[in-house]
Amino acid sequence: MTSTSIGRLLAPHPDRLLPADPATLRIARDLYESVARMPILSPHGHVDAQLLVDDLPFGDPAELLITPDHYVLRLLHASGVPLEALGVEPVDGSGRAAPGREVWRALAEHWDVFLGTPVRYWFETELHDVFGLDEHPSAENADSQYDHLVSRLAAGDMRPRALFDAFRIEVLATTDDPASSLSAHAALRDDPTFTGRVLPTFRADSYFDPARPEWAASVERLAEVSGIDTSTHRGLLDALRSRREHFIRHGATATDTGVPDASSEPLDPADAERVHALALRGLATPDDAVAYRRTMLFQSAAMSADDGLVMQLHPGVLRNHHRPSLDRFGPDRGHDLPDVAGTYTRPLRPILEAFGTHPTFRLVLFTVDETAFSSEIAPLAGFYPSVFAGAPWWFIDTPAAIRRYREAVTDSVGFTKTSGFIDDTRAFCSIPARHDMSRRVDAGYLASLVVTHQMSEDDALRVARDLVDTIPRATFRL
Amino acid sequence: MTSTSIGRLLAPHPDRLLPADPATLRIARDLYESVARMPILSPHGHVDAQLLVDDLPFGDPAELLITPDHYVLRLLHASGVPLEALGVEPVDGSGRAAPGREVWRALAEHWDVFLGTPVRYWFETELHDVFGLDEHPSAENADSQYDHLVSRLAAGDMRPRALFDAFRIEVLATTDDPASSLSAHAALRDDPTFTGRVLPTFRADSYFDPARPEWAASVERLAEVSGIDTSTHRGLLDALRSRREHFIRHGATATDTGVPDASSEPLDPADAERVHALALRGLATPDDAVAYRRTMLFQSAAMSADDGLVMQLHPGVLRNHHRPSLDRFGPDRGHDLPDVAGTYTRPLRPILEAFGTHPTFRLVLFTVDETAFSSEIAPLAGFYPSVFAGAPWWFIDTPAAIRRYREAVTDSVGFTKTSGFIDDTRAFCSIPARHDMSRRVDAGYLASLVVTHQMSEDDALRVARDLVDTIPRATFRL
Amino acid sequence: MTSTSIGRLLAPHPDRLLPADPATLRIARDLYESVARMPILSPHGHVDAQLLVDDLPFGDPAELLITPDHYVLRLLHASGVPLEALGVEPVDGSGRAAPGREVWRALAEHWDVFLGTPVRYWFETELHDVFGLDEHPSAENADSQYDHLVSRLAAGDMRPRALFDAFRIEVLATTDDPASSLSAHAALRDDPTFTGRVLPTFRADSYFDPARPEWAASVERLAEVSGIDTSTHRGLLDALRSRREHFIRHGATATDTGVPDASSEPLDPADAERVHALALRGLATPDDAVAYRRTMLFQSAAMSADDGLVMQLHPGVLRNHHRPSLDRFGPDRGHDLPDVAGTYTRPLRPILEAFGTHPTFRLVLFTVDETAFSSEIAPLAGFYPSVFAGAPWWFIDTPAAIRRYREAVTDSVGFTKTSGFIDDTRAFCSIPARHDMSRRVDAGYLASLVVTHQMSEDDALRVARDLVDTIPRATFRL
Repeated sequence: MTSTSIGRLLAPHPDRLLPADPATLRIARDLYESVARMPILSPHGHVDAQLLVDDLPFGDPAELLITPDHYVLRLLHASGVPLEALGVEPVDGSGRAAPGREVWRALAEHWDVFLGTPVRYWFETELHDVFGLDEHPSAENADSQYDHLVSRLAAGDMRPRALFDAFRIEVLATTDDPASSLSAHAALRDDPTFTGRVLPTFRADSYFDPARPEWAASVERLAEVSGIDTSTHRGLLDALRSRREHFIRHGATATDTGVPDASSEPLDPADAERVHALALRGLATPDDAVAYRRTMLFQSAAMSADDGLVMQLHPGVLRNHHRPSLDRFGPDRGHDLPDVAGTYTRPLRPILEAFGTHPTFRLVLFTVDETAFSSEIAPLAGFYPSVFAGAPWWFIDTPAAIRRYREAVTDSVGFTKTSGFIDDTRAFCSIPARHDMSRRVDAGYLASLVVTHQMSEDDALRVARDLVDTIPRATFRL
Repeated sequence: MTSTSIGRLLAPHPDRLLPADPATLRIARDLYESVARMPILSPHGHVDAQLLVDDLPFGDPAELLITPDHYVLRLLHASGVPLEALGVEPVDGSGRAAPGREVWRALAEHWDVFLGTPVRYWFETELHDVFGLDEHPSAENADSQYDHLVSRLAAGDMRPRALFDAFRIEVLATTDDPASSLSAHAALRDDPTFTGRVLPTFRADSYFDPARPEWAASVERLAEVSGIDTSTHRGLLDALRSRREHFIRHGATATDTGVPDASSEPLDPADAERVHALALRGLATPDDAVAYRRTMLFQSAAMSADDGLVMQLHPGVLRNHHRPSLDRFGPDRGHDLPDVAGTYTRPLRPILEAFGTHPTFRLVLFTVDETAFSSEIAPLAGFYPSVFAGAPWWFIDTPAAIRRYREAVTDSVGFTKTSGFIDDTRAFCSIPARHDMSRRVDAGYLASLVVTHQMSEDDALRVARDLVDTIPRATFRL
Repeated sequence: MTSTSIGRLLAPHPDRLLPADPATLRIARDLYESVARMPILSPHGHVDAQLLVDDLPFGDPAELLITPDHYVLRLLHASGVPLEALGVEPVDGSGRAAPGREVWRALAEHWDVFLGTPVRYWFETELHDVFGLDEHPSAENADSQYDHLVSRLAAGDMRPRALFDAFRIEVLATTDDPASSLSAHAALRDDPTFTGRVLPTFRADSYFDPARPEWAASVERLAEVSGIDTSTHRGLLDALRSRREHFIRHGATATDTGVPDASSEPLDPADAERVHALALRGLATPDDAVAYRRTMLFQSAAMSADDGLVMQLHPGVLRNHHRPSLDRFGPDRGHDLPDVAGTYTRPLRPILEAFGTHPTFRLVLFTVDETAFSSEIAPLAGFYPSVFAGAPWWFIDTPAAIRRYREAVTDSVGFTKTSGFIDDTRAFCSIPARHDMSRRVDAGYLASLVVTHQMSEDDALRVARDLVDTIPRATFRL
């Protein structure tokens, strides 16, 4: 960029993201204001429940706001800032993570690379509304803003529970391993001073794929936790069922599953046992491992049809694309990438033929390939009572893509077969800004239907409220 | 939805679907009004010609408006209403179709699931303009509206021929099996009291695929109808040619073909004969069957190059996705779904190398994967004189998708290499609302080109008229 | 079209392509005007450098404006005008190219098929601004306009160097074979009367694929030019390295590569040598040839990591789709077509694992499948420091698609990881109209961010300038 950002005022506009046309803006503003202060239902995310049990002050600002947020990390790295300079400790001893003050400076010096992105949008809202900053970060103010953040984070009103209330979060779902004791969820449930709902989500895909090096150890650990012998395929299924019951007793209403592809053809039981036995000895072939993983996806659907946990599915991500970064920094460092070969209609047919009209089964489909919204996900959700069109997620949970999502799926399934917004975030402090963004974009979309006479203003008001309340409650059985 | 719809006024707005911006609206309104009352050319649809021969009053409102319309059926089913409650009789005796009054009530009680969808848009226009309803359907008015519809349908001005005239339909193409006698079309042609044109369309793909269980019987029946021995591949081709002549004599100007993929590599004649002979005995391998189907696609193109029937092609649909619904309710129940593996550029190369610049051959490409518009269909239509970009169809014949289609294909091929709107409908009474929708969306698109100075208003007026008149007449040789 | 175009005024509107909404227009106009007269950086194109060395008057108007421009040629051919009538000489002696006056008439008579397309947009601007025409071409004025063009082209201010200056071109990159002497580039560099920069671009993919019939001869010629034995794979790599040095000495900053797919898995050296040896004798199998081509892509990336030439990559085009046209008219006649099976994330993994964070390596990804922008290219450019999201190109370098590109990639990568506009043209006189179009569309996009309060007007002004100056300079190391 050709100039610096010294002293530029940070003041998010009250009408941001709403349509510019005056007549549409008036309607969109009414719609937005009718939902702006409604409680947050967050049915899918990655905040650690223990954070709310401990209720300790957050530590370093960079550790809170930058290092764990792969949305922020990605574009800084893509702009030439090495991961260690962003606070990521190399796991191979090949370098040292920079201290927080330097990480904040790296962000401030690259602030302009986020221009026009939703990361900038969230971050501006968060820095202004939650942390009280009133200048854009810059090289000049990096130290003083860092000091300000450190001091704000020490304040009592900035502890996790205080923020949970200030953010008006009603339900917060976490993501948890089947072997988890869920003790943090139990502690929150049993604590009379905490009135929010923090629900676990059952995430079992690490038990699906025998090709993963840690599969056998995971399966073994599950036996210990569940008290059920997992040396057979049938035993593993029993153990998973038992853990799902444990999750349900702790408030879970949903599972979450990520797979390389959504194929769901089940093996017959004898073949599944054969592969299971080979896999425990590390002898399963790659083809066997793929077939076993697909069986497990089918069996997960069968369990959801039995116990009513809503199944969330997001295929088509290639994990850890850059091996050198994986070797130096471990997983989840911003190079999980879309692999759009994965599709829905044909791969999911076995599950949908078995459970697609089952009264209990419910399947929420997410995608990182937005072309699937109109060509596969909406058509599936438009026939199968069990299928819901998940909100844009990960690379595409952005204002422009959310608008495209509405334009792509409303045609086929209206609003009631969609999931409502999910924030999918590890960054606790970004939750309100993300939900607010979604409410603004939906208000603008609904206003566009009103001004083109496709919907009355009264209907739009009802739909706006349903999208943040009735619809996520119903879809996720909250 | 959080409230009910009691007594809400049903009154489609005169400016619906037109742009909201006042300057653009003024132009769009002029464009729309210049074409709003022009005759309807419907070159692709599924109305039964016998309906117009018999000219009997329509029967039950639900049988007319809900049960046969898979657009309506799909989202009700997806919202949890079983197919039998929507009037579909189970073919396996496992239940009973609900009577019409209850089917109408099911629609009325779920009216809000259609909010924001084009089904709601069509239905509102149709209920208001054709049937004179002035309230939105609701649980409260379901019985009285049903009674009103029954009484309206008994009136003389609601008979098929009266509506045909009232809708200003000039040309209506039907879809017909090659074995059809076309007696209804002949009767209409020979009836001096009927002045519309009702044209058959040759739909032969059930003769393409030897893997279909009914293939051999169909081939046999074609021999009887045509008087040509179909026990050889060459005989089958001769019989199809003979039936195409029969169709042309009854006014046909086009064929229609749906295939799982568009691959068109022909077998050499000896191989085709070998597969044909095996297939008649049920011995063709799956690979043989696929190769034979692709040969048949190539041969269909060759016949079009000979006899001038415009070839319509729509690959990439996976039929009868949900076997349990197929077993209970038979085919065409809303679970034919997009299978976007099917593409155009490479699969169609054999046909286009053979006939792409042939002066007689004409190929209209339809898709259910709208990404193909800019990446394959428009580039093909932008080089090959024989190729035309078909309008959005089936899952994507909606206001938002039609606008996206114009934005995607106009770049490459302008307007003259597009097909004009097709309604593709079985729902006779929805024809005017669908064409009206298309005219409004195109008016809005053209107005956007005018206000951004990409086209003069005079040119836009010409194009608006051409899109509903010159262009479909030329593309479909009407 | 239903009427003719007699005497219609040709006068491009000063606000063309800018948004219609008055408030947005005001901002967009300011943004556009701030960059409208800035110099043109054209880092990717196909103009012949010798044109500027010779500085002769352009010849026939049709030879200049129609016959070499496949954008123009394509839609005329698709509208039924044979290639020979557009001035293309059949290479098989099966016909004769029409003379220029008739070619111009063919364009004039089909002028309306371009309505709504960007070809019409460029052409109108070019005919008006460069050639001083003030009527739309039509059958009636074809002869007089042709005479006018002939006379204009004879004038001194219409010679290539005069236009180069009048167009304010600062940098013009050409596309050149590795065997090229680059004598034209040297002559321009050494000519004190020519102050522009004309840079060669290293285009080596004809040396990648041993399945091409001319591969062995090309490899042999490269040995002669470089003085390096290319009878081994290693020798070929050395010769290419040597020619890259030659290009760098003549000002090159980039390579350009087109491949059927982007797979980049390298063979081990012994296998590569084996295939090379077989291929020289015409004995490489098709699988060998594909593996060899992928190795060469990997090695090209390795060379770029060494020598700093920016690597431009555009996979997924199926060349010469229509063999009869290839046989009659040779290659590059408008039937290279998108083949969207080609993807990025998985195929490019070997290159990106090896060089994705390399400080010197730089990779600009282009696509003809715009779905890849949000699903693959932006996510890759959003993590890898070496990867940049190339501007829409070829079939999609149009106003509507450029707007969609910004909306798809800005979410993930803002502006600094994009390439800036490239004109990719052989049509020298269309360069200013193309760059102007891009500046208008970007001004409109930035204005939309301003009026929705996603960016301040000051930031938008900086970004507008950076997009035509800082960003292409940085991306292409100009």
